[in-house]
Amino acid sequence: MTDSIIKVGVVGGTGYTGVELLRLLVNHPNVRLTAITSRSEAGMPIAELFPSLRKHLSLKFTDPENGELANCDLVYFATPNGVAMKSAPQLLGQGIRIIDLAADFRLKNQEVWEHWYEQEHACPELLATAVYGLPEVNREQIKSAQLVANPGCYPTSVQLGLLPLLESNCIDTMNIIADCKSGVSGAGRKASLGTSLCEVSESFKAYAVPGHRHLPEIKQGLQAVSNREIGLVFVPHLVPMIRGIHATIYTRLSRVNSSSENTDFFQALFEQRYKDEPFVDVLPPGSHPDTRSVKGANHCRIAIHRPLNGDTLVILSVIDNLVKGAAGQAVQNMNIMFGLNESTGLNNPALLP
Amino acid sequence: MTDSIIKVGVVGGTGYTGVELLRLLVNHPNVRLTAITSRSEAGMPIAELFPSLRKHLSLKFTDPENGELANCDLVYFATPNGVAMKSAPQLLGQGIRIIDLAADFRLKNQEVWEHWYEQEHACPELLATAVYGLPEVNREQIKSAQLVANPGCYPTSVQLGLLPLLESNCIDTMNIIADCKSGVSGAGRKASLGTSLCEVSESFKAYAVPGHRHLPEIKQGLQAVSNREIGLVFVPHLVPMIRGIHATIYTRLSRVNSSSENTDFFQALFEQRYKDEPFVDVLPPGSHPDTRSVKGANHCRIAIHRPLNGDTLVILSVIDNLVKGAAGQAVQNMNIMFGLNESTGLNNPALLP
Amino acid sequence: MTDSIIKVGVVGGTGYTGVELLRLLVNHPNVRLTAITSRSEAGMPIAELFPSLRKHLSLKFTDPENGELANCDLVYFATPNGVAMKSAPQLLGQGIRIIDLAADFRLKNQEVWEHWYEQEHACPELLATAVYGLPEVNREQIKSAQLVANPGCYPTSVQLGLLPLLESNCIDTMNIIADCKSGVSGAGRKASLGTSLCEVSESFKAYAVPGHRHLPEIKQGLQAVSNREIGLVFVPHLVPMIRGIHATIYTRLSRVNSSSENTDFFQALFEQRYKDEPFVDVLPPGSHPDTRSVKGANHCRIAIHRPLNGDTLVILSVIDNLVKGAAGQAVQNMNIMFGLNESTGLNNPALLP
Amino acid sequence: MTDSIIKVGVVGGTGYTGVELLRLLVNHPNVRLTAITSRSEAGMPIAELFPSLRKHLSLKFTDPENGELANCDLVYFATPNGVAMKSAPQLLGQGIRIIDLAADFRLKNQEVWEHWYEQEHACPELLATAVYGLPEVNREQIKSAQLVANPGCYPTSVQLGLLPLLESNCIDTMNIIADCKSGVSGAGRKASLGTSLCEVSESFKAYAVPGHRHLPEIKQGLQAVSNREIGLVFVPHLVPMIRGIHATIYTRLSRVNSSSENTDFFQALFEQRYKDEPFVDVLPPGSHPDTRSVKGANHCRIAIHRPLNGDTLVILSVIDNLVKGAAGQAVQNMNIMFGLNESTGLNNPALLP
Repeated sequence: MTDSIIKVGVVGGTGYTGVELLRLLVNHPNVRLTAITSRSEAGMPIAELFPSLRKHLSLKFTDPENGELANCDLVYFATPNGVAMKSAPQLLGQGIRIIDLAADFRLKNQEVWEHWYEQEHACPELLATAVYGLPEVNREQIKSAQLVANPGCYPTSVQLGLLPLLESNCIDTMNIIADCKSGVSGAGRKASLGTSLCEVSESFKAYAVPGHRHLPEIKQGLQAVSNREIGLVFVPHLVPMIRGIHATIYTRLSRVNSSSENTDFFQALFEQRYKDEPFVDVLPPGSHPDTRSVKGANHCRIAIHRPLNGDTLVILSVIDNLVKGAAGQAVQNMNIMFGLNESTGLNNPALLP
Repeated sequence: MTDSIIKVGVVGGTGYTGVELLRLLVNHPNVRLTAITSRSEAGMPIAELFPSLRKHLSLKFTDPENGELANCDLVYFATPNGVAMKSAPQLLGQGIRIIDLAADFRLKNQEVWEHWYEQEHACPELLATAVYGLPEVNREQIKSAQLVANPGCYPTSVQLGLLPLLESNCIDTMNIIADCKSGVSGAGRKASLGTSLCEVSESFKAYAVPGHRHLPEIKQGLQAVSNREIGLVFVPHLVPMIRGIHATIYTRLSRVNSSSENTDFFQALFEQRYKDEPFVDVLPPGSHPDTRSVKGANHCRIAIHRPLNGDTLVILSVIDNLVKGAAGQAVQNMNIMFGLNESTGLNNPALLP
Repeated sequence: MTDSIIKVGVVGGTGYTGVELLRLLVNHPNVRLTAITSRSEAGMPIAELFPSLRKHLSLKFTDPENGELANCDLVYFATPNGVAMKSAPQLLGQGIRIIDLAADFRLKNQEVWEHWYEQEHACPELLATAVYGLPEVNREQIKSAQLVANPGCYPTSVQLGLLPLLESNCIDTMNIIADCKSGVSGAGRKASLGTSLCEVSESFKAYAVPGHRHLPEIKQGLQAVSNREIGLVFVPHLVPMIRGIHATIYTRLSRVNSSSENTDFFQALFEQRYKDEPFVDVLPPGSHPDTRSVKGANHCRIAIHRPLNGDTLVILSVIDNLVKGAAGQAVQNMNIMFGLNESTGLNNPALLP
Repeated sequence: MTDSIIKVGVVGGTGYTGVELLRLLVNHPNVRLTAITSRSEAGMPIAELFPSLRKHLSLKFTDPENGELANCDLVYFATPNGVAMKSAPQLLGQGIRIIDLAADFRLKNQEVWEHWYEQEHACPELLATAVYGLPEVNREQIKSAQLVANPGCYPTSVQLGLLPLLESNCIDTMNIIADCKSGVSGAGRKASLGTSLCEVSESFKAYAVPGHRHLPEIKQGLQAVSNREIGLVFVPHLVPMIRGIHATIYTRLSRVNSSSENTDFFQALFEQRYKDEPFVDVLPPGSHPDTRSVKGANHCRIAIHRPLNGDTLVILSVIDNLVKGAAGQAVQNMNIMFGLNESTGLNNPALLP
């Protein structure tokens, strides 16, 4: 199927994940952009809203109701939470595959979903069949999935930083801390005092310490691979920059390892686990990944530390929240779903500086 | 002594802590700036190096060897580590009091100091008599101190975030995590690729995870107030902004408290502990302090969280690394040493936005 | 009157010029803050909206209708354009003096005002008596003014950069270019996509090239001092930073001066003109002022260049748009109006770095 | 020749133009990177210095003396000024084509070059044969050029903004002002106090007002297309951002045009001139291009304004200084030299946000 063309629709192309998806798709060799919808901007050329796409894209936004999505092989939802679930059953019924970049299908438990997202779920029957689109865990199921729930940005960075440890049963799963830091684009594209330059630049703060919607998603993912109960404290912070997530993860070793060789053990564990992964990069011992090393790229870069040889392991994991944390991972999932090389259209290095 | 004038010298006025000290001192009603020394810039008007001081300061840098320091009542060292210890004995012998903003006298244990600062200490006999200048702990000793070791920036934010818990014996002292984030000015004023705008802006990273010089200083301080061994993992990060430190501190409650009232208990504990402190501000429950709320000000603002009512307490503590974390705290110490109102010259609110 | 206390009201204390005014006034020795009004936030402690003012200000916002303004000696309007003109006549009638930080009374010509501000003026009869509050031009009139129109930020930087040249009739007044750059705080404190960090950081652009409201204000000011028609092209730009304005002004010398001595002539002209001005600082020849040298301070710093000794003179003029461009100049005007030392409460150096 | 492979060498791959060149070349379908040299870093894997290239490039830096360059079809010099001219004659003698991203071959006049670059030129005989690599002017000569002088960043933005006006003889060539603003990466990758985040972020300033090396380059280019003497004032400014140049160009119309239709005339003039250019984008009337619309992309976006229908035309021109202002234009030149489609490897949209 490598040479085939996928007819792609994007619902909600006016946000940051939407425009990032368009950036990646306009040059994807196997994609024909067929419909990009926006109720509010229907009729406007997309490149008028996003001049960065001038000379790359001549399509106009269309109304999602006008039927063009029916001609697609795949529809991405780059919409706010609660939108995709309203259209998914009909599209799936037409044989159209779906990747939802929002949270509608990420949690398996309807009750938990409704608690955290504060609304009734429109199609709870799909929660079981939706595939959680973290290729490093669920690659096989993604291949045949009709409906992929693209993971959240924080959950991607934290899960990739913990997978090898959980799979090999090395750590105390009841005492995990994920201190995460995100650029402001994670808050989306909207008029908001709280994300204005004068309010957030030259400043740093935590937010949502009492509870954040990505907490149940992370816990569900960690539980799935470890088959254990997870005790997790997750604290997100806002960094005065546009893109990037840095997760600093603290875990307690489940059996105390006193010899210094063990640092090498954990390094080898990660390298082995990810050696065939195209988008997970385990850095050499002693490294400190910076988020700019993945700016605009689909990679997750990880370093493992064991400070002063104590019983706390510190994992540093960085991604671009809009790429591996959203649009890039969505393209990676599409590539898997349609039998393409997983890296197609995702080969650009990070923009540095 | 409130109306008296203190003749003040500043050794090393060309760095960021130096110029911040000058910003605070030019308007201090009880200070006469007497000598500001710099070997490399001797003869240059200070306001030529720092145009922000034009119309405020007409002094020139002088050579530290030219004897003017002998006319001072107090000498600040805003120098790199290892400088103050070479001059301190002589100045103290002349009856001049000293506040060292660097690390020369912060650690009580000579061996530990020499290990972390990788040099021999020039006057280890002074380590015992130097007073660690954290007013919230050592106010009484500071009053009569001849030599004050001004605390480091990270240590100030972390200690103020933990004092009430340690003094009241609430937490497991062997399992403390301090995930700290600092603006770039913490790295000092120097030509360096690693702090250039193109290398650090629009990026975020951890550094010195294997070990940072502030670790032994924090541990020493926490041990002193708790009388217990301290198990601390300290991870500093670099934030793409000029000023500000945000410490996110994770502690385990030593006895599990199941009732929801206990959050109020910790809130009250902090409020009670700091109610008379002029520069420690405990925010209302549920708050998330941002570093800009203390930009240019000498305050430390603190919030206490207990996510999902679990057994991990999360303390958020913010300071301006150049003010409460350096020059402002040094002025506060001077005020205490000379019997002035502790807030003199430190009353300016933060610059917002 | 130096020791007297001025009872001060602030209408509209929720914006950036408002909070900046409060920052300056809380420590002003001759001011008692009496009423700070906000319709939308009435009842909320001001320090709850602006945590930077915690420990400095315990007042709450009050409703402007509740009569407290009647107890004031002076009322500042830190409101959007069009608000002050609705209340000014009544307050003036009660003998209360007014400083309007918005544009309601800046233009003398009603028709021009209504054209640029797109509304009817509520009290055009006050336009003639209002004093334009640029102390460097109108100090005498400000002393006795009942109603002061505080200048706009761009107009302050441009007028101060041109005054000496216009007063001495050196330049072609029909061919002036003011290429101005402003930090984002100039756009005010409000929810707006256009000022969100993700939209404006790491970017630079011009705006309002076809016409900006500050154009007629600048032209009126330049005409007043030169008694000539003014031909001015004014192009504002948005800089990815919070505070600061940099005006780069290009003027053609009216008579060609070929000798190299003339650069000194213009330098001397500026130094002479501003030698007694507390807040205008003419830098040495060859200087390039940066906006950070006035961050948080009330100074305007100016440098004069004549590239390659040609017939174009380039003036560089920097201010903090929220201080000399708004709140600081308003305090300076108050000091003049009430017979205080002009610098009272305005002595803090810029925050650097 | 479309399917052929070009063996490419890069001399000096450790700076920002070097790493940007590598970012563009690693995915260029017709390029085989053959040698990347650095005296100081010889032996180090390139991806160790630039982790953004991990998984994209496995080459190591080699010493320029070790002969590998002789195997190349094309050598890029991404070196400081004065380096390429020392090696160019020998490489050209071996039949190797050269693109110099520095300034060694940009000026035709040896005396002018030596004046501005303050050194003797090593091979002045090549100045006449070197082709100035601005494709929009010299496309034909570039095709067969052995030695291409890649234009400077400011000169690219200013020349593209003026070409249509000069070619059609519309403006007073003796009175042009180019007020230009650049991100910090224009200063190169090096340890320098002057480009450290704490010195340049949250600030804005002009620099080099008395004279900048790009002035003679711009004048030479404008003279070449207009056949007239050029009177140009060029003032560069430093913007607190990484990438991007914004040129604001002020020109006087040579014949006064009073009718309002004339704005359309200039709009049409630009659109017509650039309609076949793949990388020059004339925006609709009334536009204000922002630099982020070209971040990481090879486009120049231009808008034309005539404020208040006066006799000054304002041209806004934006590029990414590292792409169209350096590495991207160099790749574009290579494509032209080797008969490839001019856009090969340059199709990525800007990174937004």
